[in-house]
This record gives sequence, structure tokens and C-alpha cells, in this order.
Amino acid sequence: MKRSIGAQSLVQPCPVFIIGTYDEKGVPNMMNAAWGGICCSKPPCVQVSLRSATYTHHNIVNNKAFTVNIPSVTYVKEADYVGIYSGRSVKKFKETGLTPVKSTIVNAPIIEEFPMTLECELIHTLEIGLHTLFVGEIKDIKVDEAKIKDNVPDIAKTEPFIYDHASQSYFAIGKYLAKAFEVGKKK
Amino acid sequence: MKRSIGAQSLVQPCPVFIIGTYDEKGVPNMMNAAWGGICCSKPPCVQVSLRSATYTHHNIVNNKAFTVNIPSVTYVKEADYVGIYSGRSVKKFKETGLTPVKSTIVNAPIIEEFPMTLECELIHTLEIGLHTLFVGEIKDIKVDEAKIKDNVPDIAKTEPFIYDHASQSYFAIGKYLAKAFEVGKKK
Repeated sequence: MKRSIGAQSLVQPCPVFIIGTYDEKGVPNMMNAAWGGICCSKPPCVQVSLRSATYTHHNIVNNKAFTVNIPSVTYVKEADYVGIYSGRSVKKFKETGLTPVKSTIVNAPIIEEFPMTLECELIHTLEIGLHTLFVGEIKDIKVDEAKIKDNVPDIAKTEPFIYDHASQSYFAIGKYLAKAFEVGKKK
Repeated sequence: MKRSIGAQSLVQPCPVFIIGTYDEKGVPNMMNAAWGGICCSKPPCVQVSLRSATYTHHNIVNNKAFTVNIPSVTYVKEADYVGIYSGRSVKKFKETGLTPVKSTIVNAPIIEEFPMTLECELIHTLEIGLHTLFVGEIKDIKVDEAKIKDNVPDIAKTEPFIYDHASQSYFAIGKYLAKAFEVGKKK
């Protein structure tokens, strides 16, 4: 028996995207965004949705570029930190000790310590309400050499985690369940 | 040391959204969509991105409504099945034995056996490339009574799973890591 819980911005699970940008002075910033996901295969695109009040929103509008960095479980504290404070008042790279490396492809910083980074160029902006949806074309993906398997990131080694908005908690990825496009095939 | 793996539509992790729609004859359909995510808090909105070749795309354009159903790990086989075959050639509810219940709020079916359903009204359509991005305003969420805790779905009971596009595999949610907006706080 199902019950209404009202209109809420809830799905399970949400990703943990750390968005990298530069401000006008070239100061690198990063913020935690759970409102996002892949939104096209050709060209490969990802959407991130941000409040206009955020510094990252301001930076994306200015630079038309951003990175989506995927943190490993070992960086849960840093990932949470960059979602609490604003780049307007703190230098988050300095505070966390994480290293910004300038992308050679887009005008945005790559977080060196995180295993995987999508380098994105802004191609669409959609005003929805409290949030603006930014569509970034993924121009390249950089992955730690040791965490690549068959030219894609090996999830057992990148060790991403998820955000559950319902409980406002982070969870690791659990056990392997099944092969997609396979387990559901009619024999 | 990071290495380029090229421009691919890859993030880790992706959600498993089962999109419910009706066709012109009122036949319920469902498909598996990994390209999606929350995209606004006010109004609460979710985006799903689909190829125009899919039957679901056709149904959303016609009805301007859809549901986003979150399957539990016990339904990994059914979730995968609805991502392999097209509603143009098979009646997926009949084939899987899942039960479509008409939403009283939007013109789309709720999958009864799944723990959680977002009832969405189409408010924006953005053509990106191979995929069309649909923004649905979440008009209500229905959750199994037994899986609600403090008016939100309890992830320990809804038991959603994730899709890893890199390995084309499904994984369960793993162990609790930390409280968001808390673990990263500067003391």
C-alpha cells in the first residue's frame, strides 16, 4: 500500500558531483552538487543544477565551463565540506588541501586527488525555478591511470559514493548485482 | 597520474529510473533510464533524457506526463528487461507480471511493486542531440507505507540500486559512510 509523501525533490540514489570552476580572478572553486546526471550520449553531456545564489553558478555563467569530479569514499569529508561553505567566503582548495590542476581543454580546474573528472563546456542553460539547469558537453574525461580498465573507470577502484537526500547521508557502493542488458534478457 | 579516456557519457554512479507512461490506446509502458536526476528543488523537478526512437519518448510528448519509479534490488531482472525491449513490440507489464496503477494526479502508471514513485508533469523539453531532456515537475511522491520513515523513503527498506555504465553492471547500495552537511563541518 502506497502513501503520498508530497511533492519533494527526492530520488534514490543521487550522485555526488564536485563541480570545479574558476572565478574572474582565476581562483579555483569547487562545490558539491547532487542535482545532476548524464543527459545525452551524442554529444556526451551531463547536467548539473545549481541555485543562482551559489558562487559556482556565477562562475559557470562567466566561463561557460566546469568540471564534474567524482570523489572516492576516502574523500567524503572534503566532498561534504565543499557543499557546506561558499567560495565567496573561503578558498576551498586551500582549506581542504586538495589540488586544482588547470584543464588543458576547458577553463576549469581538475581535482587532482579525485579519481575521475569530466571536462565540460556549457552548451545549454535552462532556468527552471530555484535551480538553473546547466548542460555541459563532456569534451574529455580524465581518470587515474591505475583506476582504468578497458578504457573506462573501474568502479571497484574509483570507489564513488552516493548521496541519499531522504536521510541526508552518504553511502558507499555495495555488492555487484547483475550484468545490465543481460540479466533481463528473455531466454 | 591521470589519463584521457576520451569524451564519453560516463559518470559514476548512475541511477536506475523506470519511466512509466501510457500510449494513445492507454496501454501502460515502462522503460529503464539511467540518464536522469533531480534538477530543481522549487518546484521539485526531475530530468530524464531519452532517445526520440523510444516508445516512452513518444508517450511523454503525447501525454506530457510520466512517472519515475525506483526499483528495489529484488527487481533487478525486471528493471533490466524493460531497458532491453521496446513497448512497440511487447507489453512489458504483462511480460514482467508487474502491476500498473493509474496515478490520480498525472496521466501515467505507477508500478505497484516498486517502493517509490514520482508522479511528474512535463514542464520543459530540451533537444540536446541523440537524447531529448525532459524536465518533469514532481507533483507528488508515493511510497510503500512500510518503507516510510519521517515522511521520506527509508533507503534501508526501499533498497534501490545503481547502474555503472562503465562496466554495464548493477550494484547495490553499500554501507553508511557519513551524515551530509555534518561530516565536513569545520569545528
